[in-house]
Amino acid sequence: MPARSRLDENTILAATEEILRRHGPDKATVVDTARALGVSHAAVYKHFASKRALREAVTRRWLDRDRDVLAAIAADRAIPPARRLRTWLHAVLAGKQAKIRQDPELFAAYGALAAAHSSVATDHVADLLRQLTAIIADGAAGGGFRTGDPAATARAVFAATAKFHHLAHADEWQDPGISAELDEVCGLLLDGLHSPATNEE
Amino acid sequence: MPARSRLDENTILAATEEILRRHGPDKATVVDTARALGVSHAAVYKHFASKRALREAVTRRWLDRDRDVLAAIAADRAIPPARRLRTWLHAVLAGKQAKIRQDPELFAAYGALAAAHSSVATDHVADLLRQLTAIIADGAAGGGFRTGDPAATARAVFAATAKFHHLAHADEWQDPGISAELDEVCGLLLDGLHSPATNEE
Repeated sequence: MPARSRLDENTILAATEEILRRHGPDKATVVDTARALGVSHAAVYKHFASKRALREAVTRRWLDRDRDVLAAIAADRAIPPARRLRTWLHAVLAGKQAKIRQDPELFAAYGALAAAHSSVATDHVADLLRQLTAIIADGAAGGGFRTGDPAATARAVFAATAKFHHLAHADEWQDPGISAELDEVCGLLLDGLHSPATNEE
Repeated sequence: MPARSRLDENTILAATEEILRRHGPDKATVVDTARALGVSHAAVYKHFASKRALREAVTRRWLDRDRDVLAAIAADRAIPPARRLRTWLHAVLAGKQAKIRQDPELFAAYGALAAAHSSVATDHVADLLRQLTAIIADGAAGGGFRTGDPAATARAVFAATAKFHHLAHADEWQDPGISAELDEVCGLLLDGLHSPATNEE
């Protein structure tokens, strides 16, 4: 790109994403991005106040790329809530498996931000929880789920499926049995959601 | 300890545990253990073939120290299976919270071995799964749990509670809400275990 072309945020983000892919999150710098665009690093800093702000924006864009697929499943009332819950949880796992396989460097960049408690990670989790809450609310309204508080139940389901979406388990997502294991957990959780009443002991 | 005293494995393990506490897993060496005991490192290697073998034996001993508490809960037929499952899962979490708080260096040593797929970690998990299977088998026999395969159900319950026992979540165990969150997950799982039949969709 010629040095004098208008620099917009998307151009910077696309270039930074490529730099991250090539150099990895530990080595990629703002200077690398500027050099790839033929501009000064000051020109990049005009759009992003810090290396971290730039890193967050790139990672957010990368994460959001398949967000719509998940959101569409969560909102699809043509799919009965129980099946929708199962499909959605499998899609979350499949999406993360694909990301780590296709884009290990960007996945690592996301991991570093999550470890630093970046809003990129907390926003991503909040978004997933909203989708899950919508499925569970639909299940409570017409799918036989027993819950007085869909958001609380969504948090419990999300905690109970951490192995299948929490970054800390990424190494396990390549296990050949991981999808069958998620299926088992889904079965148990759906039985719990459908249970007529708490009948402990 | 004088240099010429008889060196037995327990003495070596106790000294190594203290060295690990003092120096941390990255810095502690077999030479440190030998020096603390006033013997040559060759004398230590007579009992443990490698630094890793010594590290594994120490960590195994340290892990096993509260193993009996958990095993006693799992086997206690005076506690109805549903309450026993909940109590056991909370005891597993409480045990790990205590270990990480009281012994961060040994916990880190265990983490490093687990990351290296040491048998210390796989044996520990297999032991916990056996205990959990026993609770679930008791629940199937007389506690109203519906399962045709207690070992498979135990694996699903273990996967669904990874957030509360898997090392990768250690950072989250100090969250003030973690115990309440485990309680929510237990409730959902117990409802699932008590569910009269699979009634998905």
